[in-house]
Amino acid sequence: MLTETSSQTIVTASILAIGDELLSGRTRDRNIGHLASVLTATGIDLKEVRIVADDEDAIVEALNALRTRYDYVFTSGGIGPTHDDITADAVAKAFGLPCEHDALAMKLLGDMYAARGVEFTDARQRMARMPRGARHIPNPVSTAPGFIVENVHVMAGVPQVFVAMVEAVVPNLRTGATIHSLAVHSPYGEGDIGTALGEVQAAHKSTSIGSYPKYDGKAFSTEIVIRARDEEACRLAAAAVEEMIEVISQKKATRTLTMEA
Amino acid sequence: MLTETSSQTIVTASILAIGDELLSGRTRDRNIGHLASVLTATGIDLKEVRIVADDEDAIVEALNALRTRYDYVFTSGGIGPTHDDITADAVAKAFGLPCEHDALAMKLLGDMYAARGVEFTDARQRMARMPRGARHIPNPVSTAPGFIVENVHVMAGVPQVFVAMVEAVVPNLRTGATIHSLAVHSPYGEGDIGTALGEVQAAHKSTSIGSYPKYDGKAFSTEIVIRARDEEACRLAAAAVEEMIEVISQKKATRTLTMEA
Repeated sequence: MLTETSSQTIVTASILAIGDELLSGRTRDRNIGHLASVLTATGIDLKEVRIVADDEDAIVEALNALRTRYDYVFTSGGIGPTHDDITADAVAKAFGLPCEHDALAMKLLGDMYAARGVEFTDARQRMARMPRGARHIPNPVSTAPGFIVENVHVMAGVPQVFVAMVEAVVPNLRTGATIHSLAVHSPYGEGDIGTALGEVQAAHKSTSIGSYPKYDGKAFSTEIVIRARDEEACRLAAAAVEEMIEVISQKKATRTLTMEA
Repeated sequence: MLTETSSQTIVTASILAIGDELLSGRTRDRNIGHLASVLTATGIDLKEVRIVADDEDAIVEALNALRTRYDYVFTSGGIGPTHDDITADAVAKAFGLPCEHDALAMKLLGDMYAARGVEFTDARQRMARMPRGARHIPNPVSTAPGFIVENVHVMAGVPQVFVAMVEAVVPNLRTGATIHSLAVHSPYGEGDIGTALGEVQAAHKSTSIGSYPKYDGKAFSTEIVIRARDEEACRLAAAAVEEMIEVISQKKATRTLTMEA
């Protein structure tokens, strides 16, 4: 793993996706992959993801585990107007705060529904509930805000709204050194390259070299990804991987010639 | 939440997806959603999902938390031949078992590579390593087996191999009563239906009614999913939801007529 140096801060994060529909397989999550990419590009290390049901105890326990361990927690789901939207209550409980109708959120939502001539029902008013003192995350899609309590960012599960909230939140995050990454394609499977790749990793300890097998239904190939906080270290390790593949390629060619001879 | 009755066993499960590439956003996970659907169809309740890095401490900790809490744990990723494939070691460590080259796996892999005229390298031999006494999960795609230790099923991360391993594993799992589910589409958003839907849920306590907002870029609609172990209870609650939507629809029509009058 990469180690921290004095000049490079590491900022860590976790995602807590909330929703029975994710665990039943009914909905395939799209938010985790999106936020993972955004955090990486921003220079924040996503360390752990959890998915739990719309169950208060499960949410509270996961939230308390994650918020004490990582610099940031981002949640998705469970902040809508129906009875199964219990994230605001669970977050309030995790922090020991009262969950109540937020005055500014009530005004934002009330004005929006009034302008549309739509009744501001009890259900709709649920979307204004948040832990006391929470700060808003704006929602340009459908007004109902997400919210921030300490290091926990609570966002919607609907992907369009989630993406908009992530956009609003990211500029205000503390970020670490961006991780440089280079990808090298190997036409050979992991079995062909594994031993040599392990040697390259051992020789380039300030980088993290990942090996991702692909299978096209007939044969394996490998995507090799070199990641490092130092750009030059990343470049050198990538060059070593390319050289390694060239050597393997020549060995294979020689073997073929020998067999044909 | 659904409660257990004497005639209906509940079997619980969790998924632990392992891999830096999932946390960096480089790879969008496809295994979690697949297994979630299979487990639901099989009558097993998926309760929690975690994603962690290729980091031994993180894997061991998550595994020990999940395997003691749920009937089954299914892992994906980290059992290939490269240096960053450390799942077998981590699983062995979690169980306090030695991790060693399994004789049967060595024979399966050795025979396969011999038949293909391919060298059985140290890297390839890594794929035969597993905790002592583990049972195999067959791999019809690329031979290298997954394995089972107690209630933990260790499977590959490559989606084609993962799917094949899930197929091999599922028939041997203990399953609970299948959950019946019915979906009702509401052309109205959650704000319109939230209060009434909460009342339907309160009147049908043996069912779990989920409300899933959809946004098409212009307006919200809602998918309402009723789940219950008892088929008749599920049907009755779904009928109540349909009636609820009909009432809302009539109210809206009346309001429009009143406004036009």
